[in-house]
Formats: sequence, C-alpha cells, structure tokens
Amino acid sequence: MAQSKTALSTQAYKGTRDFYPEDMRLQQWMFASLRKTAESYAYREYDGPTLEPYELYAAKSGEELVSQQLYHFVDRGERKVAIRPEMTPTLARMVAGKLQELPRPVRWYCISNFHRYERPQRGRLREFWQLNCDVLGGDALQADVEILNLALDLMAGFGGTEFVRVKVNNRKLMDHFFTQSLSLTPEQTLKLTKLIDARSKMGEEKYGAGLGEIGIDGERRIQLEAFFGGTLETIAREHPCEGATELVKLFALLRESGAGAQIIFDPLVMRGLDYYTGTVFEVYDVSPENHRAMFGGGRYDNLVGMFGGQALSGVGFGMGDVTLKNFLETHGLIPELGGFTDVLVSLPKAECRVPAEKIARELRSLGLKVMTPLQVGGFGEQIKLALKHGARFVVLFGDEELARGEVLV
Amino acid sequence: MAQSKTALSTQAYKGTRDFYPEDMRLQQWMFASLRKTAESYAYREYDGPTLEPYELYAAKSGEELVSQQLYHFVDRGERKVAIRPEMTPTLARMVAGKLQELPRPVRWYCISNFHRYERPQRGRLREFWQLNCDVLGGDALQADVEILNLALDLMAGFGGTEFVRVKVNNRKLMDHFFTQSLSLTPEQTLKLTKLIDARSKMGEEKYGAGLGEIGIDGERRIQLEAFFGGTLETIAREHPCEGATELVKLFALLRESGAGAQIIFDPLVMRGLDYYTGTVFEVYDVSPENHRAMFGGGRYDNLVGMFGGQALSGVGFGMGDVTLKNFLETHGLIPELGGFTDVLVSLPKAECRVPAEKIARELRSLGLKVMTPLQVGGFGEQIKLALKHGARFVVLFGDEELARGEVLV
Repeated sequence: MAQSKTALSTQAYKGTRDFYPEDMRLQQWMFASLRKTAESYAYREYDGPTLEPYELYAAKSGEELVSQQLYHFVDRGERKVAIRPEMTPTLARMVAGKLQELPRPVRWYCISNFHRYERPQRGRLREFWQLNCDVLGGDALQADVEILNLALDLMAGFGGTEFVRVKVNNRKLMDHFFTQSLSLTPEQTLKLTKLIDARSKMGEEKYGAGLGEIGIDGERRIQLEAFFGGTLETIAREHPCEGATELVKLFALLRESGAGAQIIFDPLVMRGLDYYTGTVFEVYDVSPENHRAMFGGGRYDNLVGMFGGQALSGVGFGMGDVTLKNFLETHGLIPELGGFTDVLVSLPKAECRVPAEKIARELRSLGLKVMTPLQVGGFGEQIKLALKHGARFVVLFGDEELARGEVLV
Repeated sequence: MAQSKTALSTQAYKGTRDFYPEDMRLQQWMFASLRKTAESYAYREYDGPTLEPYELYAAKSGEELVSQQLYHFVDRGERKVAIRPEMTPTLARMVAGKLQELPRPVRWYCISNFHRYERPQRGRLREFWQLNCDVLGGDALQADVEILNLALDLMAGFGGTEFVRVKVNNRKLMDHFFTQSLSLTPEQTLKLTKLIDARSKMGEEKYGAGLGEIGIDGERRIQLEAFFGGTLETIAREHPCEGATELVKLFALLRESGAGAQIIFDPLVMRGLDYYTGTVFEVYDVSPENHRAMFGGGRYDNLVGMFGGQALSGVGFGMGDVTLKNFLETHGLIPELGGFTDVLVSLPKAECRVPAEKIARELRSLGLKVMTPLQVGGFGEQIKLALKHGARFVVLFGDEELARGEVLV
C-alpha cells in the first residue's frame, strides 16, 4: 500500500491518555492496591459493557450529565447507544437481571473506564478509570457504615489515612429542609442543590446572585446560613425528620465500628447526581496544597426497581484514577515500582542462539522476566542493551564458557 | 424522583457481555496467565484510549473493517471519532509519538477491549477483549521467531500446548506468486486474497465461482492448486523470491530456537488485514471438535512511518478472549477458581458489633477476604449466610466467648 501523502498525527483524542509502559505500571499498581482492599471486605469484582442503551442514563442520571456530557450515537441498526459515563446504572441493570439468584447483600466492585464530554482540565478528562464499590441489600445504615469504612481503608492501603476526611450528609434531611423549612418548589430545590454544590468554585458573589435568581430572599437566606452553620445536634433538634434521625444513628454506628474523627457531618455535601436518596458523602484531601473533594457516593433506593422487579436499596461510591494519582503524587505515596526486565541473556554470536534460548527458557520457567537480543552483539553492546532496558542481571557467555558448561552472570 | 412508568430492560446492548463476578473471576484468571507469560519475555504492558481519531483506521485498516464494522460518530466539537476496533494502529501511533525515547526493540503487550459492528455469533461479539503482543525493531526474522514462540508459550501457560499448531506464511511470497506467476492486477490480487481467506467457510463450489468472477481461468487455476499443494521446499524452488527466502530462513531459525513440529508452513494463511507485509501466521486448535483458527498476526513494515517520522518494522498478534475461553472450556483447562470470601465474622447481637469489627479488621490485615453481616442474626442464620456466600470459615461467638476472650472458628 502506498505511503499516505500527509502524515497522521501522533496525538491521542482530546481528553484521553496514552498509557506508555511506565504509566501503565503505575496504573496497575494503584489498581492492585484497590483490588486488594476491596477484596479484603469480600467484595466481588464485576464489569459491564462499554456501550449501553441510551435510555439507561436518560432515566436517572443527572440532567447535566445526559444533555451535555454523554457520548451517544445511533448504531447501524438504528439503536440509540451511549458510551457509559458512570457505573451505577449498569450495576442496577445487572443486579436487577439476576435479582433472585444473587446472594445478598450484594457486595460488588469494578475498576472500569468511563467517558464524559468535558473540557479537559486538572483531574478531569474525557476518558477516565474509576473504582466503584457498592452494597445492595442488608440493613441500610450498617451498609452505609461499611461503605464509609471501606472508602477510608482504600486510602489507608496507600498509606494516605492522615491526609483524608470523609464528610457525610443525608439527602432526606436536605429535602426536608428545602421543602418544609424553606418551602421551596422541587424546581427551586434542584437549582439550589446545584448552586450549593458549585458554591466553593463560583465564589460568594456569584452564589449570592444565584440565590436571588432562584427567589431565595432575605429571611430565607438567613435560615439557610443558620442551617449550614449548625452541628448535627442543633440541626436534628431544629429540623426533626427521617434524614436527621438516620444521620444521628449512622454516627452512633460509626463510633461503634471504630471509625474515628475522620468521618464528620457536613450539611454542605450535596452530590450532583439525581439518584441519591439517603446518606451522601465525599472524601476530602485535607492538606492545604491539594484541598479538594477526591471522590464520593451515597445511597440510592430506587434504581434496581426501574427494571420492573423488586426494589433493592444500595449504597456506593466511585473513585477516579486521575484524582487518586494526583493525591498519591502530592503526598509522595508512590514507591519505586518494579522493573520490566530481570535478566538479559546475551547473544555474542549466531551459533550461541541454541544455548541462549535454552537458558532463557529455564529462567522464564522460574518466574523471571527474561529478554534475549534480536541481534548478535559483542560484550559492550549487550551491556548497553541491558542498561537501556533496565535489566538487573546479564547472562554472558562465549565459546570457553559453553565448552565448560558455565555462564557469567 | 418518580418511578418511570415503563420498566427499563435488563438486557445488555446486543453483542456485549455483562461480567458477573463468576465471569469476571474467569476473565481475570485468563488475563493473569497471559500477563505472566508475556512478562516472562520482558514485554511491557501499555494501553491506549478507547476513542481514536477516525483517520487512524481509514488510513490502513482493512476496507471491510472500516466501512462495515467500525463504530464511529462525530463528537460535539465536530471531530470524527471511532471506537477502537483493533490495537495495532494505536500501537503504531504511540510508538511513533516517542520514537526517539523508547528503548528498542520495543516489546509491548496490552489486554484491552475493542468494538466491531458484527452480527453476534459463536466466538464473535461486538465488544471483545484481546491480548496484543508486538515487537518493533531488531532483526525482523528473529523478532518473528520470538513472537511465534511467545504465541505458543501463552497456550503452554494454560497447559494447552498439545492442542495447538501454528501455520506460517509470508505476504511477499504470495504477492510474488499472484503478480509474477499468475500476472494478476493489484485489484485481482486483493479479491483473490480475501477469497482464499474465506475458502473454508464458503465451500468449494462458491470458491470456484469466485475464482471465475475474478477472471482466473483454467490454466491459472491449475497453477493455483499446484502452489497450494506444494511444500516450502518445492515452492521456494519454483517461485524464488524474497518471501520464499525469508520463509526458509525463518524455519531454520525456528528449529534453532527449539520450536518443534508445532510450527508449520501453510500457503493458505492469508490474514485479512491490509497492513501485513511479511511473515503472517495463525494459531489453530487441532482437536476435531474445535478445529479453527484461534488467533493470528504478522509483520507490518510501514505502520509507524505513517506518522511522518522514521519507519520502524514490527510484528505482532492479537488473541481474543472469547476464542480463548472456548478453547479452554473445550479442553477442560479451567481449574477450580478461588472463592470470594474466606471468613464470615458473625454478628449474634447488636452489642457484639465492636468486637466483631475488631476481629474482621485483624483478619483483613492478614490478607484474608472477610465479610461481616449487615444484620444481627442467630447461629443458624449466620451459617446459612456463610454457605450462601461460599465462606470457608465462620467466626462465631456469644457472651461467654467474649467474656473468655475466645471465639469459635
């Protein structure tokens, strides 16, 4: 075939990454630690398809995600298809599909890739990987406690305990506050939720203007600020409701389970996705240089039921690889990772190929990573090759060594 | 949010799979074995994006793949984007992007997922996973030998050596035969190549008709049959050319490297993809009940050069997960895989949560997979739970045991 006239670009598609071997090694090291911790809680790994029916997201995922960030298209068979932007709808679909057979509680995790049409920026890409951990069934608050402990233990697996806090809130409490105390319409509530979510990013001036647009006046604004300044105790007293009761019980259970001061109540935690219905939480990096929400999740009560069968409540979170990597780098938590090559078996001349291959085969069977040169080369050349590839050992031999049945290492 | 009126389907998108934990465990077991063997040859794992510029495939991938099987669409920024259908173009792009920095030979592997718009059938799905192994640089024939040995060793890693053969051919030999001996035009050659590739699937009658359509008459048909009935020796004598010389040298090197009768010459091996330029091969299951090409690959000389830099020759193959799984199942090569839960720590009453959590934490730190119930339950209930989840051990305790600081296992 003829060489094309204009050269193709070596650039990856915008917002996606090439994982060169060094990047991949780091990625796999992170994933191995996540897997180990998730499995220590007896969570089972699963995965779903990259493509899903469009309707799966149209039903429950947040409006912003579907209308602005979802990659979707019509396939050759006229089916409307989406590239998954998150895991929870797939999880709900899979659990609903085998609702009777699955042993409960269902404790599952996955490490999968997702796509969102975003303007690429620090910590946010169009293709990213995410660990998802979920529990479906069992006592709801006990499951919430387990998920919160697991989230912390995942960070502990990297030696990152001291740098993180978990902020917990409850959607029911917020709904009660917005609709009962502030008398907001569902539409106002939705707008206010998103506004509060974005408050720290947009700054106080814009936030104040946003409140005005939603129609939250002087009196209600004071109520709002008082609420956000409250402790769990004062809020539970002044706004008694199911959500407040759940929060009080949840924190009692957390204390019992040995979770310490790292898990705190914060009424500002909202979580953008529309499907959360109870406990919601965010894991924060508390260090000043990286202060940010790293990942979060919550309880969703009506997702499995969308598929027509029995309802099954669940709680879970998703932790992105980009944020995790930034966190580990910021705190110097990435160790020296292992090499790609243990041994180079040299090839001083063509006649040595037979013994060289034999030695290589034996070393491989011992579990070593063994490279044989694809070209004959002298002593110096082979040492250079070994250094270039980071081989820890070199097997050298010539006629003499072969005659004696020995090699130099 | 209100429950939607019509229930969503729990079906996955056509031709894709849900990996429930049991499926995922098998998948990960297969991948771990592939990884181990590839790394024993000092191959380095890499990965690329799921989405790639459409042009990447338009340039070199086979016409059928691009016009009929490629998933592509226009993104919100008017970029024409494709979901990757194969790895080699991404590999070439990534290698071309760091051509000066990468230590050579480049020995890389990946285990990634791909999409093709196909009619789903046995061994062929719309989303599949594939191991890709490639060597770029070094002596070409030596690299071909290494790739062929690696392909066999991957099967040996599963204990499948006795069931497989590798059939080897050379594109240059075929081009020489088609253009010099048969005097075919490039267009006729392309059609004949595809026809021969499909010969065993379509049957002899259709094949004969196909030859007629291409314009291959009685005399040339006899030449064709004689060629396909030849040995490497007779073909090299009657059709001396670069391709035949390469094949003779390749088989000499294979003998030296200790590869046995499992690697054989077969002039019928074509490989459909347009970018192969030298050695091509297919790995076959020789057992009568599963007789089929499982995977294959070959040498591509002008892929890295498409990106405008220096040319760099490569050789590689892709092995699909569906075919591999079928192979392992057919030959009973899948062992009993490990459980998801080692220990269940029971919760006889709410007051036991504190010591139960403590015991669970200790067992987890020892590397065990430990489950704690999300509900209080009596002795019988907890044993039932343990059985349901396949836990190998149960930690049981009550007031007496706690008082004595003991537990029952």
